[in-house]
Amino acid sequence: MDSKLKVAIVGSTGYGGVELIRFLQHHPQVEIVSVISSSISGTPISEGFPHLTDIMVQDLDGVVVEEIAARADLVFTATPSGVSTELVPQLLEAGLKVVDLSGDFRLKDGALYEQWYKKPAAPASFLEQAVYGLAEVYGDRAADVPFISNPGCYPTATLLGLIPALKAGWIDHRSIIIDAKSGVSGAGRGASLTTHFAEINENFKPYKVNKHQHIPEIEQVLGDVAGEPVTVTFTTQLVPMTRGIMSTMYATMNGSYTDQDLVELYREYYKGRPFVRVRNAGIWPATKEVTGSNYCDIGFAADARTNRVTIISVIDNVVKGAAGQAIQNMNLMMGWEENLGLGLTPVYP
Amino acid sequence: MDSKLKVAIVGSTGYGGVELIRFLQHHPQVEIVSVISSSISGTPISEGFPHLTDIMVQDLDGVVVEEIAARADLVFTATPSGVSTELVPQLLEAGLKVVDLSGDFRLKDGALYEQWYKKPAAPASFLEQAVYGLAEVYGDRAADVPFISNPGCYPTATLLGLIPALKAGWIDHRSIIIDAKSGVSGAGRGASLTTHFAEINENFKPYKVNKHQHIPEIEQVLGDVAGEPVTVTFTTQLVPMTRGIMSTMYATMNGSYTDQDLVELYREYYKGRPFVRVRNAGIWPATKEVTGSNYCDIGFAADARTNRVTIISVIDNVVKGAAGQAIQNMNLMMGWEENLGLGLTPVYP
Amino acid sequence: MDSKLKVAIVGSTGYGGVELIRFLQHHPQVEIVSVISSSISGTPISEGFPHLTDIMVQDLDGVVVEEIAARADLVFTATPSGVSTELVPQLLEAGLKVVDLSGDFRLKDGALYEQWYKKPAAPASFLEQAVYGLAEVYGDRAADVPFISNPGCYPTATLLGLIPALKAGWIDHRSIIIDAKSGVSGAGRGASLTTHFAEINENFKPYKVNKHQHIPEIEQVLGDVAGEPVTVTFTTQLVPMTRGIMSTMYATMNGSYTDQDLVELYREYYKGRPFVRVRNAGIWPATKEVTGSNYCDIGFAADARTNRVTIISVIDNVVKGAAGQAIQNMNLMMGWEENLGLGLTPVYP
Amino acid sequence: MDSKLKVAIVGSTGYGGVELIRFLQHHPQVEIVSVISSSISGTPISEGFPHLTDIMVQDLDGVVVEEIAARADLVFTATPSGVSTELVPQLLEAGLKVVDLSGDFRLKDGALYEQWYKKPAAPASFLEQAVYGLAEVYGDRAADVPFISNPGCYPTATLLGLIPALKAGWIDHRSIIIDAKSGVSGAGRGASLTTHFAEINENFKPYKVNKHQHIPEIEQVLGDVAGEPVTVTFTTQLVPMTRGIMSTMYATMNGSYTDQDLVELYREYYKGRPFVRVRNAGIWPATKEVTGSNYCDIGFAADARTNRVTIISVIDNVVKGAAGQAIQNMNLMMGWEENLGLGLTPVYP
Repeated sequence: MDSKLKVAIVGSTGYGGVELIRFLQHHPQVEIVSVISSSISGTPISEGFPHLTDIMVQDLDGVVVEEIAARADLVFTATPSGVSTELVPQLLEAGLKVVDLSGDFRLKDGALYEQWYKKPAAPASFLEQAVYGLAEVYGDRAADVPFISNPGCYPTATLLGLIPALKAGWIDHRSIIIDAKSGVSGAGRGASLTTHFAEINENFKPYKVNKHQHIPEIEQVLGDVAGEPVTVTFTTQLVPMTRGIMSTMYATMNGSYTDQDLVELYREYYKGRPFVRVRNAGIWPATKEVTGSNYCDIGFAADARTNRVTIISVIDNVVKGAAGQAIQNMNLMMGWEENLGLGLTPVYP
Repeated sequence: MDSKLKVAIVGSTGYGGVELIRFLQHHPQVEIVSVISSSISGTPISEGFPHLTDIMVQDLDGVVVEEIAARADLVFTATPSGVSTELVPQLLEAGLKVVDLSGDFRLKDGALYEQWYKKPAAPASFLEQAVYGLAEVYGDRAADVPFISNPGCYPTATLLGLIPALKAGWIDHRSIIIDAKSGVSGAGRGASLTTHFAEINENFKPYKVNKHQHIPEIEQVLGDVAGEPVTVTFTTQLVPMTRGIMSTMYATMNGSYTDQDLVELYREYYKGRPFVRVRNAGIWPATKEVTGSNYCDIGFAADARTNRVTIISVIDNVVKGAAGQAIQNMNLMMGWEENLGLGLTPVYP
Repeated sequence: MDSKLKVAIVGSTGYGGVELIRFLQHHPQVEIVSVISSSISGTPISEGFPHLTDIMVQDLDGVVVEEIAARADLVFTATPSGVSTELVPQLLEAGLKVVDLSGDFRLKDGALYEQWYKKPAAPASFLEQAVYGLAEVYGDRAADVPFISNPGCYPTATLLGLIPALKAGWIDHRSIIIDAKSGVSGAGRGASLTTHFAEINENFKPYKVNKHQHIPEIEQVLGDVAGEPVTVTFTTQLVPMTRGIMSTMYATMNGSYTDQDLVELYREYYKGRPFVRVRNAGIWPATKEVTGSNYCDIGFAADARTNRVTIISVIDNVVKGAAGQAIQNMNLMMGWEENLGLGLTPVYP
Repeated sequence: MDSKLKVAIVGSTGYGGVELIRFLQHHPQVEIVSVISSSISGTPISEGFPHLTDIMVQDLDGVVVEEIAARADLVFTATPSGVSTELVPQLLEAGLKVVDLSGDFRLKDGALYEQWYKKPAAPASFLEQAVYGLAEVYGDRAADVPFISNPGCYPTATLLGLIPALKAGWIDHRSIIIDAKSGVSGAGRGASLTTHFAEINENFKPYKVNKHQHIPEIEQVLGDVAGEPVTVTFTTQLVPMTRGIMSTMYATMNGSYTDQDLVELYREYYKGRPFVRVRNAGIWPATKEVTGSNYCDIGFAADARTNRVTIISVIDNVVKGAAGQAIQNMNLMMGWEENLGLGLTPVYP
């Protein structure tokens, strides 16, 4: 027991926070020492989340850096953009390890952050220190570092779908178009007309077309892989479902590749990575096939008629797109098996 | 009463059929004289569709061409592909007017039909005779003809979204990518694993990527407008909702057009057409905004960063994508106002 | 045109308000002269409700009694409880006819209102003047009166299901248990955790068990019919759907009645009433069979084993439970056919 | 490894079967040696259930009793009613332990089975041998026996909700009315109009009112607890969601009990039982709060006005109503901790 890693979760009353709790409870090397909310404290977390009755009996704590530092070794910050900007540096300076789930430390260029997020950026030194935690691409960089910036949900699905082909030079980076769809949990637990059941149900709805703040994050990583700047067309759309992201990606191929070629390329690229599953040629994934799990499933349709490839990737936005990937990053930081505590089978149906 | 047009509906027990009934009951110039099903006859239609209790008290009739010809002036054939191929020529030869909702007469080239539908094509003379009933593009062609082939649901949303820009030469036809999404009613009322609630709910799922039989239909019309062959990339996806299609379309622009330019171009093109609503610049439509109505709503996102335009169009697949458009075509055939009996406001929420 | 009734709608930006617009546009004797909102004015209603684009081009007006009186003959007040209390007396005193959709004038006893609604009651004289507009029970009372209080959604479904059997003395009024279920639109358009898609979807949830403010309304009418006080057990539950109410009612029978006996009793009771459809013995209604329409469908299961009857009634809460019934009441006030402008077929599927 | 219990699952391609797989994979004392289907064999289970890709790589086996006996120690039979009747006796005679998830061995009286299931009953000796596996009521009976009949989904939710009050004599067993609601997964994976998405979505629908085959099962156990025959009113209704059952139960109280009295009674009754969670007074459970878990959550509304109590219980029909409870029974049969491998937190949202 004493040897377990002591973790605290800031933002425990959001969907990312409770999903961290769901997984961490079953994690063999972790003890949750504090569940923290900026809005409520002093009452049991199960009051707002009755599904945690008898499971999580702790009261919610407030955000007090010294108290966190006194009790925990590592903190997950599942906070809205703009909050982590100020909080994370304090936690790091107090000697804590941090996995930040917000968007505040993903972009290396503060000016770009301010342009897309319309908020002040974090100090450059912290932006620089943050390791972008996309394990399947940058896995080894996460080992032994104190601070991981956890990728966004759309970027996770999109980058895992594009990078092997881009890195192999099989697709033209100037041709990339991304048609992304998300369940409503991605919008968080805040009440708004946008998340109102009667407005969402039986509705399919675009938003922030070409304006989503995940665009520069995707372009930063694609540019890093391509070795030159990449600009993408990016559409975001709300699906009347709770969990799940599908990223449907289009690109012109630099050669005559078949579905089977792509399957082999991707299986080779993701070899040894436990959370990417490449479908057999001719089979495409659906979001429900990863629900509740940390998997990213990928399928292809290479089209000889147009010389374009359609790449389809799916994740559970709350897991691989947030809490699960954060735990995966913690595992790598601690030198543990990447999938420790993350082996849950998708919930189907 | 005597002067009303007598119509029969073949395929009354499918979703297209009952939607025809919903609209035709309120049509001031029409009398439904026969509701016909190939599978059931002799029982009231309200047994299988209790929502029609007290509204539609007729028994279902069987498919007997002479009986139809004796009673009706015009027939809607809302039958599966392959059935219309044989039935429609008989109806036409019996002197009936026909609006066919199947895919059997949309492709002018029988060989292309056989390649994509995997079924024998209708005789060439009937393929030739069929007028493709996309009123907003070919409206005047429908006047006074005896036989209309009603466009497919995906083609309707897609073509209305692409044609004004294509015709104006604002987009490069070699660059067209279509990411289409449909509610489950598009799959018809037949029971299958694909339509099982537990498989569809909380799921977003691609199917027939680049293989959907609506692809040659779209390419035929785009090619007709462009004046040269057009080949598109086309993805079809199932949304966990009952009604609605969104077609999200991508193309490279042949110039620096803005959202406002596009709004004006489209409003000019669709001037006087009652069922296309072009959203103001910066506003995109959602499927729920047309549910239950014959509208097609269109919005744009022209992106200077990539010189691409994203065009988003939505329809109710059962209405503008099937029954509503069929009635619109009947109105044009008869020389009536295009929107007669079709003025229903979308049902919201 | 001049002879049309001029109506104004207060609360046009709620779900009841836009549904009034949907039906009134097709009403042959009505002209909508003003759409009014207390929160927004001076912008087109289609900004908040894009489904009304091109259909309703009026700007929203503010709530100014004199202006309403200068332009309209009749006002629908689709306002939250507590607002009508003050507004309706002013409208009446300005000489307007009023159909009030709030709960403020349904209870004859102001003290009872204050107990259940936790708000000050309207003046007794107005409570007395208000005619409770349940046409199928009190139809003739609505003729020629200036002020109708429109029944609540749960009471409408419940009372239409219980009254014929209660009036006939076939059920014991001390035994009545009501298990009611509603779609989420019943909670209004206000954003809250309760209406958040991710909280409602894939969830079935009770609320206000035995505490709902519709209980005294139901008891008032049942008591009126029974001739002595009636007390019921009443459960309200949220269904993950947008529209629809089902009221499942249980009562001990005062004799050995069969399903067929009940079918005949109810058909006789509702003879000539266009909006109640009694299902054949052994068939129960489902909410989707009335969606978008003003119907109330009713079915029975009389159980010889327990000598209890289960009565099941369904309505669309936004139509027969609000806007549709309000128009039905307007029709009766004006001496028109009860179903004028209300003949829309349910939207299925 | 060698010491693990070897289990086989018959009916692996149904929803109960794949849910058994989901839980058993994480069970520390179990090895799945065979996944069996009567309809398909020789192909990987992940072909029909892609969510199991990389997780379950076994091919499906056919139903061959000798092969099962050669490889397994215990069999879960997640088969339709009528199949277990014949199969289970053979498995038992081959020396296997069996947990049967069908309804074939729940009723002690074969004649009653034939009346409600309309199928031949299993031999009386096997009906007698079967231990009804409702652990929270009959827990110790399951220890060390070779054959458990797993309770039905509706009976599980209903019996756990009623038994403590009935056993304490607090409610009148002649007054019991049960209004039950289920998600669609309860209907199984078979395709039919009843499970068609477009028919179920945005619909709330009753079926088999007072005729469901779970009625005699509920009455058998209630009668056993009450010491005299009990007859109930029982309504079943389909909710447009995939997982979840709510049983809303009504009964007349034999005294003036409060919510708090009931909370204490139930907490005392279920003391030490890991899977029943009794909500605090005034709080009612919702189905989503147990999704994906083996919990049964219970809440109360005792009403002084009517002297009735409303008891609300929820389960995940696929877990506590099927696979989870079956594993719980296996644990008890084997003398293991009741919740071994069953500790998964509900998936929320």
